[in-house]
Amino acid sequence: MKFLQTLAVALVFSQAVSAQKQDSIMLRKIFDEALVNGKSYQNLEYLCKKIGPRLSGSANAQKAVDWTKQLMDGYGFDKVYLQEIMVPHWVRGAKEVAKIISGSKQFTVPIAALGGTVATPKAGLTAQVIELKSLDELKTLGERAIKGKIVFFNRAFDPKPIETGTSYGEAGDQRRSGPSEAAKYGAVGVIVRSLTHAIDDYPHTGATTFNQGGLNIPAAAISTKGANLLSSLLKSGPVKFYFKQDCQWLPDAVSYNVVGEITGTEKPNEFITVGGHLDSWDLAEGAHDDGTGVMQSIEVLRILKALNYKPKHSIRAVMFMNEENGTRGGKKYAELAKQNSEKHIAAIESDEGGFTPRGFSFEASPALVKNLNTNWKSLFEPYEADRLTVGGSGADIGALGDSIPGVVLIGFRPDSQRYFDIHHTPNDVFENVNKRELELGGAAMAGLVYLIDQHGLPAGN
Amino acid sequence: MKFLQTLAVALVFSQAVSAQKQDSIMLRKIFDEALVNGKSYQNLEYLCKKIGPRLSGSANAQKAVDWTKQLMDGYGFDKVYLQEIMVPHWVRGAKEVAKIISGSKQFTVPIAALGGTVATPKAGLTAQVIELKSLDELKTLGERAIKGKIVFFNRAFDPKPIETGTSYGEAGDQRRSGPSEAAKYGAVGVIVRSLTHAIDDYPHTGATTFNQGGLNIPAAAISTKGANLLSSLLKSGPVKFYFKQDCQWLPDAVSYNVVGEITGTEKPNEFITVGGHLDSWDLAEGAHDDGTGVMQSIEVLRILKALNYKPKHSIRAVMFMNEENGTRGGKKYAELAKQNSEKHIAAIESDEGGFTPRGFSFEASPALVKNLNTNWKSLFEPYEADRLTVGGSGADIGALGDSIPGVVLIGFRPDSQRYFDIHHTPNDVFENVNKRELELGGAAMAGLVYLIDQHGLPAGN
Repeated sequence: MKFLQTLAVALVFSQAVSAQKQDSIMLRKIFDEALVNGKSYQNLEYLCKKIGPRLSGSANAQKAVDWTKQLMDGYGFDKVYLQEIMVPHWVRGAKEVAKIISGSKQFTVPIAALGGTVATPKAGLTAQVIELKSLDELKTLGERAIKGKIVFFNRAFDPKPIETGTSYGEAGDQRRSGPSEAAKYGAVGVIVRSLTHAIDDYPHTGATTFNQGGLNIPAAAISTKGANLLSSLLKSGPVKFYFKQDCQWLPDAVSYNVVGEITGTEKPNEFITVGGHLDSWDLAEGAHDDGTGVMQSIEVLRILKALNYKPKHSIRAVMFMNEENGTRGGKKYAELAKQNSEKHIAAIESDEGGFTPRGFSFEASPALVKNLNTNWKSLFEPYEADRLTVGGSGADIGALGDSIPGVVLIGFRPDSQRYFDIHHTPNDVFENVNKRELELGGAAMAGLVYLIDQHGLPAGN
Repeated sequence: MKFLQTLAVALVFSQAVSAQKQDSIMLRKIFDEALVNGKSYQNLEYLCKKIGPRLSGSANAQKAVDWTKQLMDGYGFDKVYLQEIMVPHWVRGAKEVAKIISGSKQFTVPIAALGGTVATPKAGLTAQVIELKSLDELKTLGERAIKGKIVFFNRAFDPKPIETGTSYGEAGDQRRSGPSEAAKYGAVGVIVRSLTHAIDDYPHTGATTFNQGGLNIPAAAISTKGANLLSSLLKSGPVKFYFKQDCQWLPDAVSYNVVGEITGTEKPNEFITVGGHLDSWDLAEGAHDDGTGVMQSIEVLRILKALNYKPKHSIRAVMFMNEENGTRGGKKYAELAKQNSEKHIAAIESDEGGFTPRGFSFEASPALVKNLNTNWKSLFEPYEADRLTVGGSGADIGALGDSIPGVVLIGFRPDSQRYFDIHHTPNDVFENVNKRELELGGAAMAGLVYLIDQHGLPAGN
């Protein structure tokens, strides 16, 4: 009996070793396919150079929908289809103008209207500036100090966190909620220090949110050099700020998520989603944000198909629409998943740039992530993409997590150092993407999809 | 007795935990100092923009020597001094010209003379081209096929290895030995495919070696696009190549290593060296190769001093001269170390670019590296610089390893994906260095120096 037990243990162990070996071979094939025959880089070039900026509701966003559908049709995926949604439609209008007025001196500074804000009067807006470092100071200072002024939020990125997303998260309230909060205290406009470590002349746009019915005031990001200048001038006395922006809201527009699918051979109604967002800010090509994510997602399916891999579960690449200013694509995807009684095992989002992969973060229990480290870390180690941690995923798949019980949300985690140098600026262009970094990321995602398809994810997230 | 044993074990364990805690706190201080008060980026800007290219023997190399000495004097290190050496002095002369001649068609292509080669005749050199993929083919084809021709080595980088240095190593014999080997078979010139994954218009220069007394022939690197064009034209029939280069050897020149030191409080004659090389190719600013390495090395000492850390051993930052075409600085450093009966514990070289740190590789036994992983990996993990592997170190410290028994040679390992895109090209400029990536690398190096100073390195390498 003891002998049989030992034999059984040995057998299970040898099967485990053999599975590990098979997985290791498959991951090497995936990376080879990505590095030798990869298509994500040329596809990204098309998206960036032939289509370009593609904010929700724009003609370019529609072109991007049409082209990615056509691309996936061409790859012969089992299903390629659109999910219709209504998206917000905000336009920047004429390029912004801004000046610091300090005594008799004027300094032109680079600004960019924040997405979702309104135009200044046609002649522009001039008011005295008050510099704050946090939203809390609004309350401390009160309406008397703020009314009629332009509030200048100037809390810099903290240099100490190793991952730049942490600093972005910490400073981000200034852009996201600063304008709406300042409006409540009577501010006539808001200028926000650009959300970046870099000290340069590029303003970083991005969404700001006004509650339904809340007062919408003109608000813009100022470059970090501009912010430093404004702050230094404020030290020597009162300063006025002049700015002019031309943005407006148009009626909601029809748009689409684009979905490609390889249908599962064993459990076709159980899904693993990989996705990024197809829309991008209007100032640049949306290369790292998030052209790389959508091209990697398509690449995951292309790689698996090229290797003639027949997944057990259905694998979907989703180009979500409207991450930047509404996440309506993500919400629609979740809504339809629920409506169609789909079972979702996992969803992976790539929306932190197409840089060298470092690993993945899981919105899951430490126990699950410990299991993954025990079983899968060594498989990713040769590809230097083996940091498997508890952490966030992505804005587009959040709604899926809320709608579908049991789905594990996963964020693709590339190296974070360069992302916020170019994020939401005119520098987010194809030339700033490295071919191999992009390909390695797509391969890492394909590897994870393969492992989840083969072995599932331990429960308990 | 048992109780006492248990107590002793508990005590040792608790001391180990406490030391680990102290180390963890010190590493955080080091990274904070680098990220908050770092000087390496501004120093690098000076080296790149105010000095620029600095090939051995050039006036700029001397400027770099003077300025780095002055910089370290300014930081108040305990000793700052020069080590005199004679360096080879090769100059490129006028910009190269090259054309592919295919029937009646001519195509201008970008080339760069390889360092160490000679000029063509003044009017240029024209000969029939023979394309080879390896040095072995020289032998197979023999003198009859090669004599009087221009040999075109065109083996591309293998895309499959994850670390790009592997592909560089594999393809590099074409540049390093291709010209001297081809000369033995009567080739009149050599054109080498640029050593890079990138497909673009930039030729990558670099050293080639002719044995003492061996025949030196004109040899140049061609851009990868140029190489692809040349190869495709060769498929349809005989092709001639014309090129003109103006380079020459001048007499050896006086130059220097620059050494800064914080003297050890307990063992002043035992050394830990951190270094990079001060010379750079003449085509660009030598930002990543190796301005980042020298500025990180100085930064290591600056950080330790700023934190008021008093090392037990002497810590040296060494700006080696002449890595690119002779490594005479490295040899001199080793020679003097031996002459002065110095004991060297470890030497760390940063010469793979100033990209995000991934870890370190050790020219040491697997057992030593396993120990380091057990004891130190977790300390570097929060900084994502925790890959501690067996592997190579750097060209400048190699001679030290040969001269001084027991020294452990260590290579700083940053992310490798972008290095060979710009290596030895006009694109190796300050603008392609990310401030935080540079700073994180310097901090990782300082962290390792601190740990070695505190705990030594287990013997047995």
